[in-house]
This record gives sequence, C-alpha cells and structure tokens, in this order.
Amino acid sequence: MPHIALPEHLPGIRAAMAFRPETAKPLNELVEVLLHSAGNSLTAGERELIATYVSYLNECHYCQTIHGAIAAAHLDDNYELVKRVKADFEHAAISAKLKSLLVIAAKVQKSGKHVRAEDIAAARAEGATDTEIHDAVLISAAFCMYNRYVDGLATNQPLDELPYLERGRQVARDGYVAVSKTYLPAQTRKEETFA
Amino acid sequence: MPHIALPEHLPGIRAAMAFRPETAKPLNELVEVLLHSAGNSLTAGERELIATYVSYLNECHYCQTIHGAIAAAHLDDNYELVKRVKADFEHAAISAKLKSLLVIAAKVQKSGKHVRAEDIAAARAEGATDTEIHDAVLISAAFCMYNRYVDGLATNQPLDELPYLERGRQVARDGYVAVSKTYLPAQTRKEETFA
Repeated sequence: MPHIALPEHLPGIRAAMAFRPETAKPLNELVEVLLHSAGNSLTAGERELIATYVSYLNECHYCQTIHGAIAAAHLDDNYELVKRVKADFEHAAISAKLKSLLVIAAKVQKSGKHVRAEDIAAARAEGATDTEIHDAVLISAAFCMYNRYVDGLATNQPLDELPYLERGRQVARDGYVAVSKTYLPAQTRKEETFA
Repeated sequence: MPHIALPEHLPGIRAAMAFRPETAKPLNELVEVLLHSAGNSLTAGERELIATYVSYLNECHYCQTIHGAIAAAHLDDNYELVKRVKADFEHAAISAKLKSLLVIAAKVQKSGKHVRAEDIAAARAEGATDTEIHDAVLISAAFCMYNRYVDGLATNQPLDELPYLERGRQVARDGYVAVSKTYLPAQTRKEETFA
C-alpha cells in the first residue's frame, strides 16, 4: 500500500505524478528530453537501455519493467536483448560505445565520485562524444531519482508484465509528455486503469 | 578537471547546465517548484535544509555548500543552524516535524525501499501532511540526482565559501529559474565568474 494517499487506479510513478502535477511537469519534461527527444546521437533504444539498467541496479521493479518495455518497443520488440543487458551487458549484442556508457552509468548509480578519468577515456576510445557522456551520466543520475521516488512512496507496482508492454509501445511511439497528458491533472480520469 | 568540456568560468551544476541547456530547463524548473515556490506549507528554509542534508550525506561539496548558503539566507543568516542540521539534526533547533521528514529523506538517500510505514506514521504524528511527506521524498530523490550529476562530471567545485554565500542570497531572493537566466544559454556570458 502506498505510504500516502495516491490515486489507486495508477501504477508506479504515474500515481505520484497525478498526486503532484506541479512536480510532474518538469519530471516528465526531463525524461522526454533525456530519453525520447529527437536529435540525439544515441538512439532512443540505447538511452532507454541505460535507464533500464540503472533501474535494475536500483532494484526498482516498476521502472526497470516499464523502461525495459519502452526499450524493447524501440528495438524491434527485442525483449531478449533487454534481459541480456540487465543480466550481463558486456556480452549483449550492443555497441562497444554503449557498453562503455553503461560502465559509466553503473558507477554514477553508486556515486558520481566513482567515475574515473579512465572510464571517460574508454568511452571516448569507442567514439563517445562529450554530449553522449553527459547524457549517460545524467540518465543514470535521473533514474537514481525516479527509482527512489517510486519506491520511497511505496507506489503500487503490478507484477503482470502485459500492461507494461502495452504502455511501453505507447510511450515509445508518442513520448512521455504527450502520454502523461492522458492522466494529468490528478483524479480527473478515474476510468483509466493501467495503460 | 571536469570529465567533459564544460565552460570553465562556472562552478558545479551551473557548468553542466550551461553545457546542455535542453536538460537544464526541466532541472531548474524542478528545483524551483520543490525548493523555492510559494504556497508550500514547508518553508523554503526547511526545504533547503532537506536538500542540504541529503547533499551532505552524498558528500557533494558543491551542492551541500550552495544549498546550505541558500538555506541560511532563508533563515536569517543562521549558518550555525545549517551546520548543526548536517552534523546532528536530532539536536538542532528545528521542529519535530522537520526532524521526522529528515529521517525519511535520509532513508530515501540510501534507497526508496528503506522507508518504513513507521517512519511515515512518525511524521504524521508530528503533523506532516501527505504533500509534505511527498515533497520530502522527492527532494531527497532529486538531490540523489543533482549530487550524482555534479560529481559524475567532476565539475569544478571551489573551496572558498564566500562566493557560495553571495550566490545563496541571490537564489534565496530571486529563485532558481530567474537566476539561471543570467548564464543560459551556454558560453554567451564569459564575463561572469562565480556568482
């Protein structure tokens, strides 16, 4: 049961966002820019894999499942690849550049101070730009926030995978800001269940 | 030295924000709503103390110093109180309600899963509302992001306290969004030094 009176018909961060639309707005805009917006040299699938991996490290069930579903939707429904990245990204079928960014993301997940000049040099050697390194650091840092927000309020996190997959396809297609408009402001759309 | 080519004339998160204005916008709007905006039943000083305490737990020099300075500016320049909250908040001259919210914030700093129903009940017993509990959780989660962002890029974090105090007064007065307009977009105001 959630620690505070969140709307019962929404799961995970969506309940927290519906409870507090004032903070939901920048939270949605941040994830939109980081993970969905065009004009990034990392694909949306690659960025979602970083978000999924960090959420997995933080053991946030809701976030790793929904972002895993969004990643898969961007990657031709390759759910096996998403699972492999979580379990053992060094041997997953992803680029060496993305692996080097996942190394940095994993260090940021522990603490920003864990990132070493050698980690940055390794990413550069694989062709990572400064903006890509910046984004890997900020995606990891941001999911250390989103994961704590979702778990710190003890939000409802359904175990059934199917609604995550449906929602994942929707977010991959339309983005976070557009999709969030269907449930904000709070408690005006009680008819909506999960997806 | 920063891990990527950040503008050299700006410290801490301000250099990272100038490097990437697209993400700076929601990052600034989030901290504005959480810490500065009016209409919150927690004072700006109380909210800044939560941000300062979490940044202290994450050992982020830049964030704990600047938010400590902003907190003090909101609290009649009571720098001793800020130091006491960091070192031993249970015996600081703050309300029992704020102490109970700092307990929750400290748990979120480790992981959202550390927050227990008893922690929430204790905060309620001191008069905390659901929105205040929500905000304490999200402020702590958000500073787990900002701290990792600042340290993960190895931003320049000056040791001299004076410029933090000057900047702290400015932010306490004008807020984050207004003050950030003086250095965004990137590299257009090279004349600016720290404050």
